Amino acid sequence: VLEAALIRARTRQQRHFEWLCDLLRIPSVGTLAEHHQDVERAAATLAGWLRDIGMNGVTLLPTGGPPAVYAEWLGAGADAPTLLAYAHYDVQPADPLEEWRTPPFEPTVRGDDLFARGASDDKSQLLAILAAAGCYLETSGRLPINLRLLFEGEEEQGSPHIADFIARHRERLAADAVLICDQAMADAQTPVITTGVRGMAYMEVEVSGPTVDLHSGTFGGAVDNPLNVLVCLLAALQDPVTHRVTIPGFYDRVRPVADEERALLARRALSDAEALALTGVPALAGEEGYTTWERTSTRPTLDINGIIGGFTQPGHKTVIPTHGQAKVSMRLVPDQEPQEIARLFSDYLHSIAPPTVRLEVRLQAGSHPAVVDPRAPAVQAAARAYERAFGASPVYQRGGGSLPIVHELQQALGAPVVMIGFGLPDDNGHAPNEKMHLPNFYRGIETVIHYLALLGLPEEEW
Amino acid sequence: VLEAALIRARTRQQRHFEWLCDLLRIPSVGTLAEHHQDVERAAATLAGWLRDIGMNGVTLLPTGGPPAVYAEWLGAGADAPTLLAYAHYDVQPADPLEEWRTPPFEPTVRGDDLFARGASDDKSQLLAILAAAGCYLETSGRLPINLRLLFEGEEEQGSPHIADFIARHRERLAADAVLICDQAMADAQTPVITTGVRGMAYMEVEVSGPTVDLHSGTFGGAVDNPLNVLVCLLAALQDPVTHRVTIPGFYDRVRPVADEERALLARRALSDAEALALTGVPALAGEEGYTTWERTSTRPTLDINGIIGGFTQPGHKTVIPTHGQAKVSMRLVPDQEPQEIARLFSDYLHSIAPPTVRLEVRLQAGSHPAVVDPRAPAVQAAARAYERAFGASPVYQRGGGSLPIVHELQQALGAPVVMIGFGLPDDNGHAPNEKMHLPNFYRGIETVIHYLALLGLPEEEW
Repeated sequence: VLEAALIRARTRQQRHFEWLCDLLRIPSVGTLAEHHQDVERAAATLAGWLRDIGMNGVTLLPTGGPPAVYAEWLGAGADAPTLLAYAHYDVQPADPLEEWRTPPFEPTVRGDDLFARGASDDKSQLLAILAAAGCYLETSGRLPINLRLLFEGEEEQGSPHIADFIARHRERLAADAVLICDQAMADAQTPVITTGVRGMAYMEVEVSGPTVDLHSGTFGGAVDNPLNVLVCLLAALQDPVTHRVTIPGFYDRVRPVADEERALLARRALSDAEALALTGVPALAGEEGYTTWERTSTRPTLDINGIIGGFTQPGHKTVIPTHGQAKVSMRLVPDQEPQEIARLFSDYLHSIAPPTVRLEVRLQAGSHPAVVDPRAPAVQAAARAYERAFGASPVYQRGGGSLPIVHELQQALGAPVVMIGFGLPDDNGHAPNEKMHLPNFYRGIETVIHYLALLGLPEEEW
Repeated sequence: VLEAALIRARTRQQRHFEWLCDLLRIPSVGTLAEHHQDVERAAATLAGWLRDIGMNGVTLLPTGGPPAVYAEWLGAGADAPTLLAYAHYDVQPADPLEEWRTPPFEPTVRGDDLFARGASDDKSQLLAILAAAGCYLETSGRLPINLRLLFEGEEEQGSPHIADFIARHRERLAADAVLICDQAMADAQTPVITTGVRGMAYMEVEVSGPTVDLHSGTFGGAVDNPLNVLVCLLAALQDPVTHRVTIPGFYDRVRPVADEERALLARRALSDAEALALTGVPALAGEEGYTTWERTSTRPTLDINGIIGGFTQPGHKTVIPTHGQAKVSMRLVPDQEPQEIARLFSDYLHSIAPPTVRLEVRLQAGSHPAVVDPRAPAVQAAARAYERAFGASPVYQRGGGSLPIVHELQQALGAPVVMIGFGLPDDNGHAPNEKMHLPNFYRGIETVIHYLALLGLPEEEW
């Protein structure tokens, strides 16, 4: 069964390439209203292919936004494990168009790379799952395990409906493990398993004072300037020397990383030299007592993402403005809770704000951190699958960014979430000239074929 | 001579009113290129009237911007004192036009008020000087003292050429005292003599770090966020409790206010209740150990006038921006020097900025503070003149704002600068529906007539 599927994957590369090009020609930009119909068309196209390869229960499920494409094959029996595989079919906008060497929705091959918006993020990775299932079903009429597929249509909008959706479809999504295909490898030879994502509490802070803009000559010195107060409040959130967040209770729930996992993560971690080169800063800085890779993955952070107030044009105007605003986001690690962190943040600022101003603090967006134990069988099976398809063991990384679906799925299904992917760091995801390295696309299909086979075997037979 | 001039002022009110209306119909908005010719026309009109009333040496002096209108009458002889009287003929833009009840450049009387842009600031005050001179010259053919007139055309642009101009024309402007007519009274019954203005050091601060915007998921924690650093630097400029500026040396040159002057200024000073009502803040705040009126007049201040950086649109974006900027202005009091304060400010920030960012600090604009001794004869003569024209003694105030010309004239001429005026606090200067209280215009003319007479007499004859 496995062997037949692998042979099929190799003989049908042209068909898989054509699927990819067909999907990339549909500008499924979820954030833009003018592409609404394209998003629907992408979903319908996928549903057709899923039916073609023999998946069952193919359906477009309403979410409140673009539909989720669902399909299943549950013929492996109640004793066999069930995998839920996730990817997304929507893409980022293509702007700025003038920076594309070839049009973003006309897939173009240059060397081993296929250039188009969504090539890497996430259409080739979605098709790796779809094609792998097809290679089994079209050769053997069956899969090694039960499989559910979920292709989301609004990941690039921050998955605003995904938590509700998962809650409403818990039974339909029930699985023993979850595979998410939406990541990049360390390089073309080195696959990555992402064993965690950071959560987020994204806050908005507004300090207001005078009811009208005041002349700083007339009232300068008599009232607390909202901007003077705002910078004091924001400066009080973090120790500038140790870079520790000073919000009382902020670190209380931070779970230490076990030595074993730390060693695993350290094997191929972001080096200081890489971080310096990639950022262009004069020198790195971060939380005392931790390395750069820990600071960007296993430790929580606090960043001011935006600030505005008063006169910001060229020249000078001597105004005491009515108000000033800032956006502050904290990346969270297990077991920090976004709602609790938001409350601690707000309580702290309110406790130090002077009574001479009005302070408003809001949670703008939040998501939970999540980790998966690298020793979990579903993770180790992914490692073996990578080894067979790429001939190289994967490295383990904790992602520094946030992927709300990971926590939502873990909570709803009680299953480990395994994050893999076949993109490359220079794929220009979210940027002009996005590309997919085609050999990775084909190896990705083989990786998923191996993964399904491995999950169907007892660990001792891997 | 005095009596004839006063009678003339009363019998010629209609003509003075018409002058005012004629001048207000010329939209001499200096900042707007499309009004360039109007500014020239206003200057030419004034020159014509000055010639008509018998002033000598009437000329339009180039400044680099709109011309300065100069005129003199030096027939009182070398032993008589010389006064330089200053006002400005340019006006603020009239926007927002839709908020004007009647068109800004069609002077309209409602009750005792004349509505038009520039009615109070500063065309009626300029004409008070011109009309007073005319009332003397047209009745007696002479003035009680030597008089030089300087009407500026770019005061509303911050007088960018005035320092150069004064330096180039020191001899032409030479005087024993300077009168500036551009102020407001405390109320319609209470004239004001302004005995000082604050100076200013207006700084721009820029903190930059990464060479490109970074994703806070990927690099959050590894680099100093320029906005996190910027708020720390700005917060370090002032103690949030005592509101003392913490820049080393900032207060070193602050000259204490003598008890006598303090008592004089306290007589009719901004009360806390007034400040609360005018600003709408929940509570006042300011430098420990000083009253609200001192904080806004005799004490230096530090205000952030604007700040911007990163993502400031609605919603959220998890960016570590390349840079952040702020505008910070300090109001200065004698004998603080703007250049020195700018240096202290810059040195301090550079001394506390971490090596993980790049810091740029620039002096954007600066002006010197200035004070005049309230006991100076030229000031006391203004007090007597007010009493005779308004039947009320003036109160003394230190202005909280900045008027660069005061220091420049004091330095260049070595003469006391007396600041008076006939506007009212609710005249809507710089705002829609600017007005002049016409009785104040006519009393203003009489005040200047008395002032010229008083300066021509020994103090014991006042």
